[in-house]
Amino acid sequence: MAHGEDEKKENLTEGGLLDRIKTPADLRRLAVEQLPQVCGELREYLIRHLSSNPGHFASSMGAIDIIVALHYVFDTPTDNLVWDVGHQAYAHKILTGRKDDFPRQRTKDGISGFPNPLESPYDTFVAGHAGNSISAALGMAVADMSNPQRKDCKTVAVIGDASIGNGLAFEGLNNASNQHNNLLIVLNDNDMSIDPNVGALHRYLSQFLTSKKYNRFRFRTYNYFKRKGYISDTRKGRVTRLTNSLKAFISKQQNIFEGLNIRYFGPFDGHDVVKLVKILREVKEIEGPRLLHLHTVKGKGYEVAEANPTTWHAPGKFDPETGIRQKELASKPEAKPEEPLWQDVFGETLVELAKEDDSIVGVTAAMPSGTSISKMMKAYPERGFDVGISEGHAVTFAGGLAKSGKRPFVAIYSSFLQRAYDNIIHDVAIQGLPVVFCIDRAGLVGEDGVTHHGLFDLAYLRLIPGMKVTAPGDGETLRDLMLTATTTNSPMAIRYPRGKIPAPIKRSEPQKLQEGKGRQITNTEGARYAILSIGATLHSAKEAAKRLNQEGTATDLYDMIWLKPLDTGILDKAFEEYDGIVTVEDGTTIGGFGSAVAEYMVKKGHRTQIEMLGIDDRWMHHATVPEQKKEAGIDGEAIIEAIKRIKERSGK
Amino acid sequence: MAHGEDEKKENLTEGGLLDRIKTPADLRRLAVEQLPQVCGELREYLIRHLSSNPGHFASSMGAIDIIVALHYVFDTPTDNLVWDVGHQAYAHKILTGRKDDFPRQRTKDGISGFPNPLESPYDTFVAGHAGNSISAALGMAVADMSNPQRKDCKTVAVIGDASIGNGLAFEGLNNASNQHNNLLIVLNDNDMSIDPNVGALHRYLSQFLTSKKYNRFRFRTYNYFKRKGYISDTRKGRVTRLTNSLKAFISKQQNIFEGLNIRYFGPFDGHDVVKLVKILREVKEIEGPRLLHLHTVKGKGYEVAEANPTTWHAPGKFDPETGIRQKELASKPEAKPEEPLWQDVFGETLVELAKEDDSIVGVTAAMPSGTSISKMMKAYPERGFDVGISEGHAVTFAGGLAKSGKRPFVAIYSSFLQRAYDNIIHDVAIQGLPVVFCIDRAGLVGEDGVTHHGLFDLAYLRLIPGMKVTAPGDGETLRDLMLTATTTNSPMAIRYPRGKIPAPIKRSEPQKLQEGKGRQITNTEGARYAILSIGATLHSAKEAAKRLNQEGTATDLYDMIWLKPLDTGILDKAFEEYDGIVTVEDGTTIGGFGSAVAEYMVKKGHRTQIEMLGIDDRWMHHATVPEQKKEAGIDGEAIIEAIKRIKERSGK
Repeated sequence: MAHGEDEKKENLTEGGLLDRIKTPADLRRLAVEQLPQVCGELREYLIRHLSSNPGHFASSMGAIDIIVALHYVFDTPTDNLVWDVGHQAYAHKILTGRKDDFPRQRTKDGISGFPNPLESPYDTFVAGHAGNSISAALGMAVADMSNPQRKDCKTVAVIGDASIGNGLAFEGLNNASNQHNNLLIVLNDNDMSIDPNVGALHRYLSQFLTSKKYNRFRFRTYNYFKRKGYISDTRKGRVTRLTNSLKAFISKQQNIFEGLNIRYFGPFDGHDVVKLVKILREVKEIEGPRLLHLHTVKGKGYEVAEANPTTWHAPGKFDPETGIRQKELASKPEAKPEEPLWQDVFGETLVELAKEDDSIVGVTAAMPSGTSISKMMKAYPERGFDVGISEGHAVTFAGGLAKSGKRPFVAIYSSFLQRAYDNIIHDVAIQGLPVVFCIDRAGLVGEDGVTHHGLFDLAYLRLIPGMKVTAPGDGETLRDLMLTATTTNSPMAIRYPRGKIPAPIKRSEPQKLQEGKGRQITNTEGARYAILSIGATLHSAKEAAKRLNQEGTATDLYDMIWLKPLDTGILDKAFEEYDGIVTVEDGTTIGGFGSAVAEYMVKKGHRTQIEMLGIDDRWMHHATVPEQKKEAGIDGEAIIEAIKRIKERSGK
Repeated sequence: MAHGEDEKKENLTEGGLLDRIKTPADLRRLAVEQLPQVCGELREYLIRHLSSNPGHFASSMGAIDIIVALHYVFDTPTDNLVWDVGHQAYAHKILTGRKDDFPRQRTKDGISGFPNPLESPYDTFVAGHAGNSISAALGMAVADMSNPQRKDCKTVAVIGDASIGNGLAFEGLNNASNQHNNLLIVLNDNDMSIDPNVGALHRYLSQFLTSKKYNRFRFRTYNYFKRKGYISDTRKGRVTRLTNSLKAFISKQQNIFEGLNIRYFGPFDGHDVVKLVKILREVKEIEGPRLLHLHTVKGKGYEVAEANPTTWHAPGKFDPETGIRQKELASKPEAKPEEPLWQDVFGETLVELAKEDDSIVGVTAAMPSGTSISKMMKAYPERGFDVGISEGHAVTFAGGLAKSGKRPFVAIYSSFLQRAYDNIIHDVAIQGLPVVFCIDRAGLVGEDGVTHHGLFDLAYLRLIPGMKVTAPGDGETLRDLMLTATTTNSPMAIRYPRGKIPAPIKRSEPQKLQEGKGRQITNTEGARYAILSIGATLHSAKEAAKRLNQEGTATDLYDMIWLKPLDTGILDKAFEEYDGIVTVEDGTTIGGFGSAVAEYMVKKGHRTQIEMLGIDDRWMHHATVPEQKKEAGIDGEAIIEAIKRIKERSGK
């Protein structure tokens, strides 16, 4: 009922064609008329599997026809296919030998949810952060041009309409025509990012849909001129472009991409796979950088998803027949009032504080729902800003807001904030502007894997002069830190993970915290050991302390809260009183919290044993968060073992 | 003879008008006809002072008329004037009460060479890294809109044609029309960055110069419609824009900025100050985001600079009468063969290695001369890439090149590489691609000051898994590391400072180094102390070791070379054998080399005294490099004192 493909179903042998496609070469052996069936089967397949093993649904459904056409027309993996934010590339995975692995995507030791060059030669580049495909593909295309074995190979970057508004994508576009290359950019324009798209470029792109006929005329005219030999697309040497007068004749309409010296074709329907093959074959043979604009529908082929693409971006489990999501049925098990999400507490507290303080504004970069800035945008539409996938701009814009008297709370995912590192340093910290960085998805993120963890923030923020760096271990402290940030006259970071706060919030009124002061959580008579935790590892640390104390290893626990300024009072005491200390953090052990404790101890000349727990110098792949915590050695068990190692060495 | 202003000279009372201008309010009291004289006097002033106290000359000369017109038309500092790469803003400094301080610009305790909000309320925002002005100004403009006291204030961002090709600037443009604001962007188009400009947007902008008349017509038509009341520029509520049909009537030409919903005016002559005032008065009253495109000449008013704007970007001292630079006269004292520049050794070695290895390519972001990638571009034009002020793209592009078999050496200044932090992590390191980061201007940079130091690189790179991080202490080691990088199968960073290598290069053949191996420089009988240096602090460390040994404090010296992997062999030995260790680095003490030593010692349970020298948690302002080293406490004297502190504590 829900997926609107019923009328085609009879023509489909379930799994009929798809089962025969082990590699794209098998796809290329099919007749072009069979491709709609392949697309239909892929849709069925995705609905069946993503309903029980959740993933990125709507964008993956929308990209199916483009993916089939690309693999049909281009000689992958010899030709380079480069994805941008690869979570729309599921059909690509299925067509490139990973169909049988697909049911285990995003699980430990299963395939990744994103393109992964370590996983397949068909995945040419990492694609977790939006906007990198044009630059990366341009590198490949330029490299191939000077390689006699590969100079006729093609390179295609597939980028979405939200990603193309990113500054990196623009830098790629701006450089695309600087060298001789054959880069084809396919713009998959679904009129959406995860949340509705923002930005002028987006509005600009939508205008094209109103001038379809005109552009179709233009494309045909171009082909006509080409056939007549008026236009030369020689592969030798520099591209001979249309003369300006001819161009003026064909195109009355100047275009942003043509302005950047990139030939523009489109917009065309990105769901008409047969026609896409025809267009791609034409465009493939044209020399020089060019952009093909395709219009698609997020969730295409599954009615409820088409109607609610934001909800269906990553819908969780659902009933494939009815389209009812488990979250709806189960009365939101992920957000029980007694175990709220960090994000919800952030968003609600922001609105609460904004009510009392007119200067507070909220900024996010394309993640209003994910970060809950949406709550602010709803409560105070003029005071919530979604700037699109423009993390650098988000921070510098916040710097400008702060300079003119606002107190911006900038909510960005930790791994994406890496893109704004210089903006934090240059546009905020040097001036000491009171921008509050609310760093979401800090620590281990689970199924999204290596590109999405927030493991570096504590370390890369700590070294910025004047930056305050904090991490709450519970919901009350998140609220307290947010209140504290409203009166702090310097940049301040508050970082917290994805998901549920492991304990209900008991205290309703937030309290202002003293800067650089942690707190002692357990105080056990005769404790010889101490656990120092920062941020969301507090819960595991509590479990560990409890068990250790039950087992007779008297251990104290401290929640440091502030990484910078560090609570040197707690540290001085700890160095004096305990035989050994375990530091625990959900971030890298290089330069982070443990490192700060070591630095301070060395400076003060203390000689206490320290075991530093955190994520060692390595990449963490996809799995559940508990699996990753265990693997990294930062769960309760690992803390207990660390204390026991100290105890053993101390001989007590 | 050289400065082409002779014919106007008679009308100028030297210093006549300029001396009367203590603040822009004084400027605004002049008649508009007097402004050309002010501009002439400013040019005389800059020539006189910059010839003896070097600074950024050519761009400053080119921006004078725009600066005078802006301060004349806008009510600064109530209206916000935001600079982009502020080194063109000297005339702004002189007009805003800093004329008498100007002779001491860029010297210790003198005024900064860049806009500095701590220095003056007329400097609204930090402007050391290109491309931030639109985002910052947009923040101010949006903030002012909701402030009853400031809602009629104007905000102007002044950005150059090279800066506007930066991704951050694009993100700013793309977001400019999202909220109600009055942002005016003045595009100072001098057809140059420091080196000749690259990128498609640049070529696009130059086209406009051919259609001047057309645009003039368009502007007049717009004003006509406005007078007739067909166009409403009401300040109340949302901007009422031209209807599309009317717009189509006025403008047959679509335009990138109009495509981004930013009203475009220009191009106009940026040196006709009287006309600029007229245009600015018109454009000032228009509502909503708008861009005014002005064409200027770098070095305007000084013939030799106009003819060679790259050389005259920062020419050093020169004879104001003849235009002969001291560097020319003194047979390049800064680059004697026996004391070569780090940059020259880098550039020459790259060409040398590229001769033997076809896969080697060079990439830089708008700094071909500064980094010496220009040598590669000259020797192998197809293998040297200048991508413009697009640091993020430079790194991701290099990732693509590496993925397709090239070995890119990416040369970027340390502080600018902060802009590519996520690109290093996401687009290079996760895949372990063999991109070589040649990090120029690492450490303290002297006169450019707070925005230009490279103090964070060691720390922010060390925490990236799989990244090799090195710093040579002399020219031979730089060459050795570059050779080593040609066969390393992972990302690798080599960082070195601005300026001269303090010792001549004795060995002509580079040698491959063993990974993670430092070397002992001095080995003194009975040494109880050791200095561990990394990178360019080696020279000061040698001086210190020499003096300490002469004075009877037997001290060994090690050049670590590798921060990652760390030479644990040297460290284990040092922890065993010495009473104390001094670590010294020209970077932050948080998370850097000293911190790595402390981490390792704590992990191994050693208890050696360590004194960590480096730049403490603070911003370093402009001064000479030796002054800064002294202030930071990383010069020879500071190292000696640190060893003596250890000696004293050891009681030996």
